[in-house]
Amino acid sequence: MSESIADASPVRIGVFDSGFGGLTVLRALLPRIPCAEFFYLGDTARLPYGSKSQATVARYAVESAQLLESWGAQYIVIACNTASALALDAIRAAAHVPVLGVIETGADSAADVSVTRDVLVLATDATVQSHAYAHACAARGLRSIEKACPLLVPLIEEGWIDHSVTRQVLHIYLDQALADARALGHTPDTVLLGCTHYPLVRPLLEAALPAGMTILNSAETTANRVHRDLLSNVYLPSRIASDRNLARCHFFATDSVDKFRVLGSRFLGQPIERVELIDLGG
Amino acid sequence: MSESIADASPVRIGVFDSGFGGLTVLRALLPRIPCAEFFYLGDTARLPYGSKSQATVARYAVESAQLLESWGAQYIVIACNTASALALDAIRAAAHVPVLGVIETGADSAADVSVTRDVLVLATDATVQSHAYAHACAARGLRSIEKACPLLVPLIEEGWIDHSVTRQVLHIYLDQALADARALGHTPDTVLLGCTHYPLVRPLLEAALPAGMTILNSAETTANRVHRDLLSNVYLPSRIASDRNLARCHFFATDSVDKFRVLGSRFLGQPIERVELIDLGG
Repeated sequence: MSESIADASPVRIGVFDSGFGGLTVLRALLPRIPCAEFFYLGDTARLPYGSKSQATVARYAVESAQLLESWGAQYIVIACNTASALALDAIRAAAHVPVLGVIETGADSAADVSVTRDVLVLATDATVQSHAYAHACAARGLRSIEKACPLLVPLIEEGWIDHSVTRQVLHIYLDQALADARALGHTPDTVLLGCTHYPLVRPLLEAALPAGMTILNSAETTANRVHRDLLSNVYLPSRIASDRNLARCHFFATDSVDKFRVLGSRFLGQPIERVELIDLGG
Repeated sequence: MSESIADASPVRIGVFDSGFGGLTVLRALLPRIPCAEFFYLGDTARLPYGSKSQATVARYAVESAQLLESWGAQYIVIACNTASALALDAIRAAAHVPVLGVIETGADSAADVSVTRDVLVLATDATVQSHAYAHACAARGLRSIEKACPLLVPLIEEGWIDHSVTRQVLHIYLDQALADARALGHTPDTVLLGCTHYPLVRPLLEAALPAGMTILNSAETTANRVHRDLLSNVYLPSRIASDRNLARCHFFATDSVDKFRVLGSRFLGQPIERVELIDLGG
C-alpha cells in the first residue's frame, strides 16, 4: 500500500480510534468527503485506552498513526478522545502528514457558539482527568466544567440506547455537573460530547438537559474541520470536489473482528461487511 | 527472585488477574493461608480480557503465569474468569507448577450444594460466550443457565455498590435469567458468581433473588481449594501450618498503579501500600 499516489487518485484519510466509537466520526466524514478513500483502524485488542497511562496511550496511538501513514494516509484523524487528550503532540511529532484531534475541534466549535462562554464537557474518566478539554476551552476564552460519565460507554455498548436505566444515569450525571456549575457561578449554554460513543444517546441528553442548551457532537465538528482543511490544502481540493459517493472504506481491528462488525455497524449507521485483523504485537 | 527456596521458607503463591478483581480471591486466601508469600499480578495495561479473543487472552495469560513462576511461585491461581475460561489449558501446558482456575472450583462447589442440579451462572460477556461454566457444570451432572451481566463491572468500578441503578440493573438481568430458566424447565437453586467483581454486590443480589437460593462466590470456593491442595501436597503442609498472620503480599500491575492502589484496596478489603509497575510489552 506504499505506492506513490497519482494526483488523480482519491485522497486517503486515516481514522484512528481505540475501538469502534470513532466510527461516528467516519459516519460524519462520509457525506462531507464522498470520494475519499478511508482507512479506519480500531485498536480493539488494547481498548479501552481510558484506563491506561499517558505513556501507554501515546505508544499505542503513535504505532497506529504510523501504520495508517504506511498505508498512504495523507491526513490522519485521531477520532479517540483519550488519544487526542493524551497523545496528540506525540502523534504529530511522529507523523509526516497533518493530524487532527477531536478535542481541539470540539473546543473550537464551543468557542464559536457559546454566548455565556461557559461550557459543560461530558467525557470518560481518562479524558476528564487529563483536563485536555478544560485547557483547550481556556485557550479559547471559555470556562468549562468537565464531568466524567464512565457508565455511558458500557450502557451504549449493552444497546440500552433508549432505556430507563440510561435515562436515570444521565440525569444523575447531569444533575451533578449542573450543581458543580452553579456552585462555581458558571452558566453553561453549550454541552460538548467528549466521547465518540455519546452521540448515540443524544436524544436522551436533549430530553434531560434544561431548555436552550446547545449540544455539540465532536464527530460532526471534526468532520467539518477535515473538510475545510482539505479544501484549503494546495493540492487536494480537486480530489475531494466530487459530490458523487465514491467513498471506499477499509476497516482494520487488532482483535474481535466479529464484535467490530456487529457493534461497529451501529456506530457507523450502515453495515460493515469486512474487517481485517491487524497484529500490533499487543 | 529466582533463588532456590529453602524448605522452611513460606510457600509462594502466585495470583493472576487481568485487573484488580482477583484481589477478592487474594482476600479469601489470606485468612486461610496466613503465612504464605503472595505475588499478585494484575495485567491492567491490557484489561479487560473480556472483549478479547481466545488467542489473545491465552498469550497474555501464559506470559503472566510464566512471570509469576519466574518469581518463585509454587502454585498459581488464575483469579480471572475470562483467563480461566479461555486459557487454562494453555497456561497449564506452559507452567511447571500446579495451576488452579476459578471456574472448575466454582462448578465443584455448585455440584456439592445444588439439590435441584440446576445452576444460574452470572458472568461477563466473554465468559458466557466461552460457555466454560456450562461445560464445567455439565461435566458434574448440573444443568446451567449462563447470564451475561456486562454492566455490573462498570457499576461496581463506579462505586455504585449500594445504588438504586445497580439494583434495577441486577433485577433486569435476574428477571431475564430466571425467565430463560423457566422457559427451559430449569429450577435453579444455586447462583454462581462467575466474575471476581460480583462479590461486592452480593448484598444486593441476595435481596433481589427469590428466597432459598444459595449464592456461591468463586473467590471463596477457590481459596478453600488452594488450601486443600496445599495441605495434600507432599512437602508443603508444614509450611502453611502456622495460624499466625505472617502473610506477605507483593502487588504488580502493568499500568495505572495509582488506580490499582485505590480501587484494589476496595476489592482486597484492606489498604494496598505499594504496587510495582511491570512492563509486559503490551
